Amino acid sequence: MTRIRARRLDGLTSSAIRDLLELTSRPEVISLAGGLPAAELLPTARLAEAAVSALADPASAQYTETCGLADLRTVIAARESGRLGRAVDPQQVVVTHGSQQALSLIAQALLDPGDLVVVEEPSYTGALQVFRAAEATLAPIPVDDDGLDTDALEELLAGGARPVLVHTVATFHNPRGAVLSAPRRAHLASLAERYGFRIVEDDPYGDLWFGTPPPAPIASHTDRVIRLSSASKIIAPALRVGWLLADRDVCASVELLKQGADLCGSSLTQRIAADLLADTAWLDAHLTTLRGTYGSRAHALTDALSAEFGPDVTYSPVRGGMFTWTTLPLAVPAAELLPVAAGLGVAFVPGDAFAVAGDHTRSARLCFATSAEDELAEAVRRLGAAVRAAGDARAQVQVQS
Amino acid sequence: MTRIRARRLDGLTSSAIRDLLELTSRPEVISLAGGLPAAELLPTARLAEAAVSALADPASAQYTETCGLADLRTVIAARESGRLGRAVDPQQVVVTHGSQQALSLIAQALLDPGDLVVVEEPSYTGALQVFRAAEATLAPIPVDDDGLDTDALEELLAGGARPVLVHTVATFHNPRGAVLSAPRRAHLASLAERYGFRIVEDDPYGDLWFGTPPPAPIASHTDRVIRLSSASKIIAPALRVGWLLADRDVCASVELLKQGADLCGSSLTQRIAADLLADTAWLDAHLTTLRGTYGSRAHALTDALSAEFGPDVTYSPVRGGMFTWTTLPLAVPAAELLPVAAGLGVAFVPGDAFAVAGDHTRSARLCFATSAEDELAEAVRRLGAAVRAAGDARAQVQVQS
Repeated sequence: MTRIRARRLDGLTSSAIRDLLELTSRPEVISLAGGLPAAELLPTARLAEAAVSALADPASAQYTETCGLADLRTVIAARESGRLGRAVDPQQVVVTHGSQQALSLIAQALLDPGDLVVVEEPSYTGALQVFRAAEATLAPIPVDDDGLDTDALEELLAGGARPVLVHTVATFHNPRGAVLSAPRRAHLASLAERYGFRIVEDDPYGDLWFGTPPPAPIASHTDRVIRLSSASKIIAPALRVGWLLADRDVCASVELLKQGADLCGSSLTQRIAADLLADTAWLDAHLTTLRGTYGSRAHALTDALSAEFGPDVTYSPVRGGMFTWTTLPLAVPAAELLPVAAGLGVAFVPGDAFAVAGDHTRSARLCFATSAEDELAEAVRRLGAAVRAAGDARAQVQVQS
Repeated sequence: MTRIRARRLDGLTSSAIRDLLELTSRPEVISLAGGLPAAELLPTARLAEAAVSALADPASAQYTETCGLADLRTVIAARESGRLGRAVDPQQVVVTHGSQQALSLIAQALLDPGDLVVVEEPSYTGALQVFRAAEATLAPIPVDDDGLDTDALEELLAGGARPVLVHTVATFHNPRGAVLSAPRRAHLASLAERYGFRIVEDDPYGDLWFGTPPPAPIASHTDRVIRLSSASKIIAPALRVGWLLADRDVCASVELLKQGADLCGSSLTQRIAADLLADTAWLDAHLTTLRGTYGSRAHALTDALSAEFGPDVTYSPVRGGMFTWTTLPLAVPAAELLPVAAGLGVAFVPGDAFAVAGDHTRSARLCFATSAEDELAEAVRRLGAAVRAAGDARAQVQVQS
């Protein structure tokens, strides 16, 4: 068979995170690698009830509008209005097949090859994949415990760089666990207005805060924001319901591209999502459960890390979301630790999987959402054993050589 | 707001069919325009039962593999093995978000700008949209009542044309209603082997035959075929479950692109699809119902056309699927007839919506699947009135001028 491959596949490699799933799918491995919601908290009974209710109407089995079910756009617009402190028109909402599709369609709609996109360092790999597929030029800006370093961004802009987009997971950053501070949100918004770029505020985790809610979204500061969010982390990934909030011009372009991409989403899962998002009594109680459980797990994980590694470990403050970014006392790169760790029954994502140009060799992303507290403690004990085993092996090699 | 638009949006226009849905969504309009399965035959109770059963397992609410749920790939491979007369490996199957996503990802994986793609004249608009977005050069080959004219294709190839892909809806063509004859299937396969192109056999309607089953798929003649199909027309569009069958190289490229496009499909709707496709007793009975009902409706429509227009009308033989291609005694182009017809309570898709380079001004695609027999008869009476009204108006204009 002739090997035919289009240019756009050049340099596009499979996401390290996705490939890792194979390595870590053995049942005896405790995986801190995935970004999966806790299976036991998925509201399966409520979903089944909503599915049965939806299917009383044949329209829930039929094709739906490309831009999404009207009722779902309305409930999303209402939620976003409350969050942004201004009225959001349902016509500014496009429902997508997870927020990953929103990212992908935005990149197709707004980027030509060679266009400059500012991304975070480290960055959500799904965003990097999309921007690389669009043949964009990536300019990484570091993320610290207060999120994207907007001073570094301002310096880049002052030096003449003119990005089309700035992508940020401002709230409970993936993988860095950080929250963009309120002053930096305002600063970023003002830079967008001064320099004429759009901000992609990628916000799947914003509802999952532990102590206090995060600062108001960047989109509350400026209308130069395309806001993305999703039902995946607060209800269920299997709905594949994400959305974007943007100006009409962006919405129209995304809708046009979505026609070619997949015609439309699922009227069944969109009807279920509309039902559950509109049931605020149920949703509030569900979010309270998620926040409480994920918060306890986050602290169980960081407590275990401190107990296992003492002052040799650092981790990002856990204020919400699903991840902490951990820097370990490693004799070998985290990517080399991983097979050792998997052999000892624990998995994580090496920091370099999220690298744009930076060095995250000693860091790892740990997900605390998926596992119970005692499993997290056991996972960290195994991680300690793996670090020691990798260190011993390294010392052995050095003695021999 | 700065108007930013990527080059790939140039020349991409909204599908005429999709836009028509607005015009025809008034309840008093009988729409022969859509391509919607009959709502009253959608198996909503069976879907609800399968949803409840699926959600007994939290995995049905979680993320799933990018290439699709293993059980679903297995049942699809088994179905396709029976159809093609050879063993199909589940690893040659990728589940997509409807078969439209398969088309879109194939185009991204296999086409560079300027690559030649042979398409049918007239053609499925969703395919044209995808190939145009990929900046392919389109070479149209006519479709007659026996499907794609493979002699014309051979002439094109003999003249030096070297397409990367040939796209065909070989069975119950959309919009042309035709079936590619068995000799032409063999001819097309031999051309693919001689000239080294791949065939995209886009087959959403193959199960919906009325009298006798269609000839064996093109993929039974050669492995140079990427076969697409879908649960949309035989179970329900809202599952958004389509699939492609291809060699491993194509599957790997498509899977890589799907990671960036939307991470994965819905484990819930894929589990439901696997359940219903594996329940062959139920599925066979359901298909028998669809075939019987759609067949009766098809003949009701063509009988009404003959009664209304006499020898002035031609329509494609109805052997299966959802559409007949009708050429009407029109004084005005079908696109100009449409607003008149909509005003009189009937809608259709003008032939030119499916044009690549050809002239289909006097033709229309009529869908017989969605409406009951008495509605189809009433629709044709209204169509007759619209044709007369448009003719009178035209004569009036000619007298005045």
